[in-house]
Amino acid sequence: MAGIVNSPPTIQPSGDFNDLFLRVRPQMAALDRFMRHQVDCFEPEIRGMAAYCLDTTGKRLRPTMVFVSGWQGQDVVSDDLVRAAGVVEMVHLATLVHDDIMDKAELRRNRRTASREFGPDAAVLLGDALFSQALHVASQFPTTEVCRMVSESTRKVCSGEIMQTLRRRDITISLAEYRRMIDLKTAELFRVSCYLGAKLSGHGEAFAKAADHFGHHLGIAYQIYDDLADFVGEESRIGKTLGTDLATGKLTLPLMFLLEQVSPAERAATIAALSGGQPLGLAASRQRMTELGIAGRIVVAIDEELQIATRGLDPFVHLAPVPLMLQLGSMLKAQVATLQTSAESS
Amino acid sequence: MAGIVNSPPTIQPSGDFNDLFLRVRPQMAALDRFMRHQVDCFEPEIRGMAAYCLDTTGKRLRPTMVFVSGWQGQDVVSDDLVRAAGVVEMVHLATLVHDDIMDKAELRRNRRTASREFGPDAAVLLGDALFSQALHVASQFPTTEVCRMVSESTRKVCSGEIMQTLRRRDITISLAEYRRMIDLKTAELFRVSCYLGAKLSGHGEAFAKAADHFGHHLGIAYQIYDDLADFVGEESRIGKTLGTDLATGKLTLPLMFLLEQVSPAERAATIAALSGGQPLGLAASRQRMTELGIAGRIVVAIDEELQIATRGLDPFVHLAPVPLMLQLGSMLKAQVATLQTSAESS
Repeated sequence: MAGIVNSPPTIQPSGDFNDLFLRVRPQMAALDRFMRHQVDCFEPEIRGMAAYCLDTTGKRLRPTMVFVSGWQGQDVVSDDLVRAAGVVEMVHLATLVHDDIMDKAELRRNRRTASREFGPDAAVLLGDALFSQALHVASQFPTTEVCRMVSESTRKVCSGEIMQTLRRRDITISLAEYRRMIDLKTAELFRVSCYLGAKLSGHGEAFAKAADHFGHHLGIAYQIYDDLADFVGEESRIGKTLGTDLATGKLTLPLMFLLEQVSPAERAATIAALSGGQPLGLAASRQRMTELGIAGRIVVAIDEELQIATRGLDPFVHLAPVPLMLQLGSMLKAQVATLQTSAESS
Repeated sequence: MAGIVNSPPTIQPSGDFNDLFLRVRPQMAALDRFMRHQVDCFEPEIRGMAAYCLDTTGKRLRPTMVFVSGWQGQDVVSDDLVRAAGVVEMVHLATLVHDDIMDKAELRRNRRTASREFGPDAAVLLGDALFSQALHVASQFPTTEVCRMVSESTRKVCSGEIMQTLRRRDITISLAEYRRMIDLKTAELFRVSCYLGAKLSGHGEAFAKAADHFGHHLGIAYQIYDDLADFVGEESRIGKTLGTDLATGKLTLPLMFLLEQVSPAERAATIAALSGGQPLGLAASRQRMTELGIAGRIVVAIDEELQIATRGLDPFVHLAPVPLMLQLGSMLKAQVATLQTSAESS
């Protein structure tokens, strides 16, 4: 691929990721402009609130997936891809606004959540307004395809969240059920982001489906990583309130592994604390995870998903998006490794 | 217009409304089937919750507006109109689910609200899933028009609700600001319902715009009626928790008129109670409204809106929808009269 101004002459493991971010910089700059313009589409009375949510400090994983899956070269900034990236990011931001109400989270991206800033009632409605605007932008494509895919995907994201909410403090959740929940609540929008990136940049159905498959499994891997970070991450580094899964009684993979590995007595005590609604101590759980090497098992699970994700791209290695998609996978793998190191040294 | 099986031989004032409901019965039956089918479109795990919200006991004002504005005769049940009616009703039901969380309302259509039944957290997400599904159905039309109109309208509805939420206990709201809030939160979806009814049944832009204008002003009239009912209605008749505007400190037209008419001392005491978050007694406020004849002033305001609504239909009296649209206006007028009688005799 063509050299990039400011990119390091040789690509180091960490330089790899810097390289990916440098590559999508023109697209991200276009997305910044797009999001700023979106603020003006809201009614004047709520523009300030919309601007607060449509900030530009997030990781923008889903837009990255759109741009990477539809990669046509660094100098090609496609309006369609920018618009699609804006749609999936806005849907995601809307779900965050609603999630933070339920989790009573105070901090997101190192600043106050919308719920904390404007109150939970206004935050419910603000999330709705963001959803609506996302779908409004989706309806600006010439055909109904984007609207159809994104609205269905959004419904699935909500369904996954509902399942998780209804099964708080339920320790009978099976691995298959956990998988189904994260499939819906996270992998769904990752999947659609990759599919739309490929499709809107003119690729045929075969590659669009491979991109879809990649996004799906990358999404699962990412959610497992995120669930691990909630236990063993550092708040200042991750930029959001951690320990919320434990505090709200969500049974995620790290806790499932923990329950599997402890003695029957410790298991019973942990279950009693979880089911009874008493918060388990984050520090204590974190300590036990370290002692039992849970992070190592989680890393294996994530690696498996990443392998499934990238394997589907094998027939398409000649296409421009694929090297960047593989880089995206490596990037997650490196983040997971950093988390594991921090977990094991804590 | 052609006679209808089962309709009374002569149309009495009350028979008028029965007549309207009889006329749209085939369309409503099709909507029933459509809504039941919609339940199956949700993920199996949340179908029961979706079915609870997509119940068929509501007034279905917005679907009625779609059917009436696109009227082509009693035997014509258009799939497009049924689908559009389903979309606007689902959006409306989603907003109700979210409204009831914020208002902490227990009762809606004589049964428990979704928030009371499933908990506020699940209700936030359930409302989101209903919104998404509504937009998903909107994306099943051949063009993006329905999606574009409905998503924009939904954003406006939410913006109106946000404004109202942020200005709870604010007694400085002007008449123009009240008007702007109800324009957005109610009239917007009424407007789109009428526009889509006219447009999807093949009418030209001129009549579609007149239908839009009719829906807009009918919506304003309806919201003022609804605000009056919250003070002077009977819960068993209206079928939802009343007095919530007062309890949550929403300044609506009846309260604005009350504040205008009382003595400075009573005004100051009322404002102090409202601003301080102390609930004003519903019974006492109701009593004062009766004594001061507030209902009468509200009825005048509603009548003015209804006149503006119907006046725009004058050039189109030869079109099949118009007599039914006028009937819809009369129906609201009669409901208002019933409310006024009950207010004045209480």
